[in-house]
Amino acid sequence: MGVAAIAESGGTRVAAVMSAIRQRIANRSLTPGSKLPSVRAFAATMQVSTSTVVDAYERLVAEGVIASRPGSGFYVSGQVVPLALAEIGPRLDRAVDPLWVSRQSLESSDAALKPGCGWLPPSWMPEAALRKGLRALARAEDAALTDYGTPLGFPPLRQLIARRMMERGIEASPDGIMLAESDTQAIDLLCRFFLETGDTVLVDDPCYFNFHALLRAHRAKIVSVPYTPTGPDIEAFARVVAEHRPRLYITNSAIHNPTGAVLSPVVAHRVLKLADQFDLTIVEDDIFADFELTPAPRLAAFDGLSRVVHIGSFSKTLSASARCGFITARREWIEGLVDLKIATAFGGGRLSAELVYNVLRDGGYRKHMETLRARLSRAMAETGSRLRKLGIEPWLEPQSGMFLWGRLPAGLDAADIAREALADNVVLAPGNAFSLSQSAQEFMRFNVSQCLDDRVFQTLGRAIAKRT
Amino acid sequence: MGVAAIAESGGTRVAAVMSAIRQRIANRSLTPGSKLPSVRAFAATMQVSTSTVVDAYERLVAEGVIASRPGSGFYVSGQVVPLALAEIGPRLDRAVDPLWVSRQSLESSDAALKPGCGWLPPSWMPEAALRKGLRALARAEDAALTDYGTPLGFPPLRQLIARRMMERGIEASPDGIMLAESDTQAIDLLCRFFLETGDTVLVDDPCYFNFHALLRAHRAKIVSVPYTPTGPDIEAFARVVAEHRPRLYITNSAIHNPTGAVLSPVVAHRVLKLADQFDLTIVEDDIFADFELTPAPRLAAFDGLSRVVHIGSFSKTLSASARCGFITARREWIEGLVDLKIATAFGGGRLSAELVYNVLRDGGYRKHMETLRARLSRAMAETGSRLRKLGIEPWLEPQSGMFLWGRLPAGLDAADIAREALADNVVLAPGNAFSLSQSAQEFMRFNVSQCLDDRVFQTLGRAIAKRT
Repeated sequence: MGVAAIAESGGTRVAAVMSAIRQRIANRSLTPGSKLPSVRAFAATMQVSTSTVVDAYERLVAEGVIASRPGSGFYVSGQVVPLALAEIGPRLDRAVDPLWVSRQSLESSDAALKPGCGWLPPSWMPEAALRKGLRALARAEDAALTDYGTPLGFPPLRQLIARRMMERGIEASPDGIMLAESDTQAIDLLCRFFLETGDTVLVDDPCYFNFHALLRAHRAKIVSVPYTPTGPDIEAFARVVAEHRPRLYITNSAIHNPTGAVLSPVVAHRVLKLADQFDLTIVEDDIFADFELTPAPRLAAFDGLSRVVHIGSFSKTLSASARCGFITARREWIEGLVDLKIATAFGGGRLSAELVYNVLRDGGYRKHMETLRARLSRAMAETGSRLRKLGIEPWLEPQSGMFLWGRLPAGLDAADIAREALADNVVLAPGNAFSLSQSAQEFMRFNVSQCLDDRVFQTLGRAIAKRT
Repeated sequence: MGVAAIAESGGTRVAAVMSAIRQRIANRSLTPGSKLPSVRAFAATMQVSTSTVVDAYERLVAEGVIASRPGSGFYVSGQVVPLALAEIGPRLDRAVDPLWVSRQSLESSDAALKPGCGWLPPSWMPEAALRKGLRALARAEDAALTDYGTPLGFPPLRQLIARRMMERGIEASPDGIMLAESDTQAIDLLCRFFLETGDTVLVDDPCYFNFHALLRAHRAKIVSVPYTPTGPDIEAFARVVAEHRPRLYITNSAIHNPTGAVLSPVVAHRVLKLADQFDLTIVEDDIFADFELTPAPRLAAFDGLSRVVHIGSFSKTLSASARCGFITARREWIEGLVDLKIATAFGGGRLSAELVYNVLRDGGYRKHMETLRARLSRAMAETGSRLRKLGIEPWLEPQSGMFLWGRLPAGLDAADIAREALADNVVLAPGNAFSLSQSAQEFMRFNVSQCLDDRVFQTLGRAIAKRT
């Protein structure tokens, strides 16, 4: 958004200059003690008058953010300026800022409807199996209730994960698997392990919006390639890796978030060939694996865990309350990751891992997943049909999973619709929250399991009618 | 350790050169694509012959770590070189390397004796209350079992923590408290929030050894001040903050790990005055709070949470298996920390927080802690007396807690004793693992709750006898 667009009056022009300086301090391009741009230079940069910049600088002095040294200029105050994640990266409309969307989903009351969130309603989760698992845990040996986990994590769960990987063609041994607190912590550890400040990371466009927030926290440069119904656009992929030499590519391959697309074997092959050529490490986030009806290709299976790191968790199908994720990778990388996990989380706990194991080894989980997949298929069909009636066209018909990526009627901006719906206590997920290039303003992600209440479509219908 | 000491033969000289290069690559002073020092220059640096360096470089070429460009020199290969935490910072004896000590404690079998570990035996923990709490959880509403936590974390637990803080003179409101997965994750989030690469952090010498590992993961410069029986040596503190201008000071104030010392009000006042003068932010880790017999001064209480951030967890007194820590700080900092927590851990889970709350609100926990404190006092007296018989003198008589910091008979090196004991399946914690300056080789930290088995003293006695 240009300065001209925000600065409609003198007051907002001053605010825009103040905000630009604050942002530079937040993202550390101006550090404590460093000199601000001269009034004249910054007026030129911001395309405002010098008196606007003087006014803005004086207000920042009054706030103690900067200090003036007569005859010398303005300097960033020596005071503590902690990392402000929300101010790193481009300033986005709140409704499409990844952090804001996460907070809305996590914060809103149980009374809110959340077709924009990324999880199933509690009543869809295996609560009976969880209760049974907790009762079993209440009878477990003392150490399970009180001790830290071992560095790699609870061995029986790692054995079980290794067997499940085998079913998907990924040859992982239990010693090559490390448990993490969650899928997000797994990616975070991998970013710490592989990235240096300023390294470039490649993501899909669109992709899971929290990847953007996480990569901001690592101060990585982010680049993206368009996602197609069979995986990343391979020509764009070739161009981007050649030009930007990203250190990592973070993706979902089985069921892509937010589109529900599935990688084809041909694209998998070509992605891996380019990864070899440009020495790219791939993080394959397989968090939706258990939703699959028919197994899709995994990059980790094609590659044999050479340059692909495979991660997952149980938060989508078992419980997000009991945190437990995992990383499978080359053995020497797992060694380094264990050190990092101990240093930053001291090994983690046993309780969640024991609970997850109790539930997974119970025959009931497989049956639960069968029921769940059938239920999601029905919800997918019904949501698709109801969205079409409102003029919202699915980008593709997902084979499985909970997400439907829908295109709004021409000319509508999903951020406007999302803001409108929030007033009705309906949390939506506008497309640009998922899009680095901000090219998905006509799209919206719908979680079909959260779309079974008529009020979702009533609210959507009203918001669309108001703007067409 | 000088090169001369390791390089006793030609073979080990080559190995030392290889290791020095690998270390520079690991700590990123040599990045992929960068040129290695010339053979002649590096021979001078390492005080070896040029043919030794040529030999070492050739072996590294064979391993693919570096590549030779004829006529131009040697370059670090473009290949992936992930962060090797163990190789950042000085090369330490394995027995005093913080990561190695953590791994030994976490990995060793239940059959091992662990007077060096930092936690209570499972049988000392409130297992009946935990079992009761788990059964209550098995009857909880669905959302508690399946949903993500809210951004700040489970409100009733935050209210309870705020009340407990009040008892220690810290005025915190529930909205100024954020739950974290653990005490370690809390410090990790604070490091992300406050530090930039290369910032300096001040710790006590000795201090909890994992602070060193955690700060390495953040690539911070670490400086330290000696700890006295009443807090940090205030003259050294003044000198170090003036010279190094650290961004953070990380400390325990109530019961200091590893010494069991307690901050005096006078030292608290002076530390805070210096912190004001040099704009230092303090992280006060109060993880041992519940072990206190009489309340000691808290920096956060003196300071009113202005520049002190106060953290804690329940892993030492309730359960390390159910992960749950917390951060209390200025409201605007909590806002930024919530964003970071969502980005890097997606809010965390509810299960551990609900379980901790179930246990804490039960009257049984207070009673359990009374029993535990009495039991620790007895173990402290008994361990002290048995150590004295072996010639190990406590540095001070701790008022409370589980740690006793003991000085070995003159001339003994704690790392040697620790290595010796490990062969007997006894895990000890040698002093230098806690000491940045490596000046605590005569000291050892004893966890008195893990010292009730005769074999601990038999092993210690044998190891000491062998070396005197």
